[in-house]
Amino acid sequence: MNIALIFYIIGRVLQIEAVFLLPSCAVALSYGEWQGWVYLGVAAAAALAGQLICMRKPKNMTFLTRDGFAAVSLSWLVLSAVGALPLRLCGDIRSYTDALFETISGFTTTGASILTDVEALSYSSLFWRSLTHWIGGMGVLVFLLAIVPMHGGTHMQLMRAESPGPSVGKLVPRVRSTAKILYLIYLGLTATEVILLLCGGMPLFDSLTLSFGTAGTGGFAPKNTSVAGYSPYLQWVITIFMIMFGVNFNIYFLLLMRRFRDVAKNDEFRSYLLIILTSVALIVWNLIRSGTAIGMAFGDTLRHSAFQVASIMTTTGFSTIDFDLWPELSKTILVLLMFIGACAGSTGGGLKVSRIVILCKNGLNELRSYVHPRSVRKLKMDGKTLDDGVSRSVGVYFFTYMLIFTVSLLILCRDGMNFSTNFTAVAATFNNIGPGLSLVGPTMNYYSYSALAKYTMMFDMLAGRLELYPMLLLFYPALWWEKGFSKKHL
Amino acid sequence: MNIALIFYIIGRVLQIEAVFLLPSCAVALSYGEWQGWVYLGVAAAAALAGQLICMRKPKNMTFLTRDGFAAVSLSWLVLSAVGALPLRLCGDIRSYTDALFETISGFTTTGASILTDVEALSYSSLFWRSLTHWIGGMGVLVFLLAIVPMHGGTHMQLMRAESPGPSVGKLVPRVRSTAKILYLIYLGLTATEVILLLCGGMPLFDSLTLSFGTAGTGGFAPKNTSVAGYSPYLQWVITIFMIMFGVNFNIYFLLLMRRFRDVAKNDEFRSYLLIILTSVALIVWNLIRSGTAIGMAFGDTLRHSAFQVASIMTTTGFSTIDFDLWPELSKTILVLLMFIGACAGSTGGGLKVSRIVILCKNGLNELRSYVHPRSVRKLKMDGKTLDDGVSRSVGVYFFTYMLIFTVSLLILCRDGMNFSTNFTAVAATFNNIGPGLSLVGPTMNYYSYSALAKYTMMFDMLAGRLELYPMLLLFYPALWWEKGFSKKHL
Repeated sequence: MNIALIFYIIGRVLQIEAVFLLPSCAVALSYGEWQGWVYLGVAAAAALAGQLICMRKPKNMTFLTRDGFAAVSLSWLVLSAVGALPLRLCGDIRSYTDALFETISGFTTTGASILTDVEALSYSSLFWRSLTHWIGGMGVLVFLLAIVPMHGGTHMQLMRAESPGPSVGKLVPRVRSTAKILYLIYLGLTATEVILLLCGGMPLFDSLTLSFGTAGTGGFAPKNTSVAGYSPYLQWVITIFMIMFGVNFNIYFLLLMRRFRDVAKNDEFRSYLLIILTSVALIVWNLIRSGTAIGMAFGDTLRHSAFQVASIMTTTGFSTIDFDLWPELSKTILVLLMFIGACAGSTGGGLKVSRIVILCKNGLNELRSYVHPRSVRKLKMDGKTLDDGVSRSVGVYFFTYMLIFTVSLLILCRDGMNFSTNFTAVAATFNNIGPGLSLVGPTMNYYSYSALAKYTMMFDMLAGRLELYPMLLLFYPALWWEKGFSKKHL
Repeated sequence: MNIALIFYIIGRVLQIEAVFLLPSCAVALSYGEWQGWVYLGVAAAAALAGQLICMRKPKNMTFLTRDGFAAVSLSWLVLSAVGALPLRLCGDIRSYTDALFETISGFTTTGASILTDVEALSYSSLFWRSLTHWIGGMGVLVFLLAIVPMHGGTHMQLMRAESPGPSVGKLVPRVRSTAKILYLIYLGLTATEVILLLCGGMPLFDSLTLSFGTAGTGGFAPKNTSVAGYSPYLQWVITIFMIMFGVNFNIYFLLLMRRFRDVAKNDEFRSYLLIILTSVALIVWNLIRSGTAIGMAFGDTLRHSAFQVASIMTTTGFSTIDFDLWPELSKTILVLLMFIGACAGSTGGGLKVSRIVILCKNGLNELRSYVHPRSVRKLKMDGKTLDDGVSRSVGVYFFTYMLIFTVSLLILCRDGMNFSTNFTAVAATFNNIGPGLSLVGPTMNYYSYSALAKYTMMFDMLAGRLELYPMLLLFYPALWWEKGFSKKHL
């Protein structure tokens, strides 16, 4: 492994984090909070540490897939460990484990919280908590790529390790330009949402934090009641933006390039919209038929259904209503949406719509092969033939995913909560959603789990965000013990 | 499709069923029950119908995979439809839907029951119910192959469609001899169990019915308390035989041929034993630590744990204790064992141990490919290189399985039971186990589900037993509408 280069990258990541900690100082200043000093101190320490690490430039710039994976997973661990410090030091969260849980939940855009009273936090901490969503959504290494010049293969390996989805496409030939375009689209969409929320009469602080939560498909809100307290207009705006941030960002690039035909041909995009529409329709029907919607106008039923579907499907995790009280069918639809998740190349989590589409096409192909054994059909995606390797990888990914899910579920069971709680707690953290059902439902939180369970869920959140393998690789002995780990690269 | 040959096979299946209905008449005779006449009447009708169908011998004996699949799924449907008749006609079960559920549950060796009071049934019905397990365990078409001479490709296609597991191996070059050997081993093991149970002082009727249930890994018992009322010796005998019937029957053939080295090399067999031992150890530890085992001797704790693990892992479904009262960790282990299931080529259900082994090896290989991108390793199973096609098929199977599971879960949710009930009800029927947790736990039953939910679970039981594709194929339009379905084969 190219340890020197990995260290260098981590140093740069620390510097970036230092910069991102500064806005919280500004927030503290405007609200007159002493906690700003804590944020300033941590920022200074991170900047200094980053500078010290980056003093020695690595000579060897060769970078393999495993180096990219290790760099990404280690960067995210360092990012979270440092990001948790101000929350603990300023006393807003009493235990470091809980602060780490909250920060990892932030960076991985999960939105699962251990806080029993969100509104007791200082404004600077609330702001930092939401900003971690925004940083984690598009990825800190993609940000690094956009601003720091790097060499040769390094780019692509980092991009591949941090971007969600079965295959990563470059928008333009240069990776650096791709990263820049992605961040510009991200920034543009976020700014638009802030403005639309301000127009609806939402205070600036709420508009910013909620937009960060929407953009990163995170789910932390500055209010105990999540988004329930805002007007229908504001809830609709957030619904639409959640759905927009769950779309593959390539789609926006294609729209900017006026390649509308390519957008229309995109299998994943069409399936994504279809699943959302079907789920909303089913839940509205179920709510009305079961009598849950009695005394509620049709418009309100539609709004709550659309909001919850968009929030869960895009793995955001905001809520406008306690859906743990909904009938079983609606709850089960939401649990299933947790696993599907958003589109590849978006800021959302889950298995990703494109993987589900590929798996379904594979299944249908298998069935077809029994009826017509002699006709071997190649799978097609977006009108192009799908590589056999991708198809196989997706199958392996699906099983590895289920395996991690299973082991996590077993560990959580030791705490003695009921099956629905444990099952949805793993589903909600592993898929980076946030709230589950029962004791981790939208009005509850993760506070009462044991430390072991919390560390398991932290691993799940990181594994879910970084698409399993970068995190799993850290536990693969050969990565550390093989000859490549000699001092020759140092 | 070769409709004529499929009809012919169904005719033969009806004749076999007629023969298997006769023992119930003998039981009725010895207990002086009038219900024997009903069984005799149905047997006569089935024999007559079978004879009429088989009058015209098909000319064309060409048989493709799809024909095998269609023959198997249609045979099982007819078998169940006719098998449910006596239960309904003699009044032991009041609705035909319930009788059909009970019969499909019997033939697919599930053991899920809609009966609230088993002991109210006539002895002839109790006997028939348990005998369906024995018939379904090894498969009715394998039986057909063993006794009726067939031509060319027909054998293998039928065998492949009815035998569980990712790949079907012939023990000896001739399929007919293979089928005979399998049934002889099956008969020998069943007879041994009956004798051992009789030695322990169990009445003959109970010994026979419980042995049928064990051999087919079914789970119907002639008592309301399942196996709880018998002595520890009898429970240990059943435990050991459950584990034995969950082993691939090829292993017994290898043992008979004195090829011990091949047995030792068998990956699936070793994993199967390892999973059982680990699960028993974990559950014993959990029961003692959580205080559930207070006032219970260690031997009893071990016996109950081993019995329940063997029962669920082999997908039998007997119980000696209400494990729904066990702590969460133990319950979750049992739920996970439901999905793993027994070995391929055994009478058990579930995903099968060999599939899990292949999936795990695939996952590890993927991880390895990131560390050493240039070394492509072939997967090995039992010391031999695994065909890429099998590996891919297993991935597709796993996803198709999850998809059917999901859709079934959604349909069951309409009945408004809680999540644990619905989740384990689908898991227990789809994996052919029997009891689940909560409202379908070991002391409860499936009576209260709606007809729609029951039909869904009937489909799941058949799909689980016949390994998905034969049942799915019935819904594949091209099977029925393509040119092959013209009259030319009739």
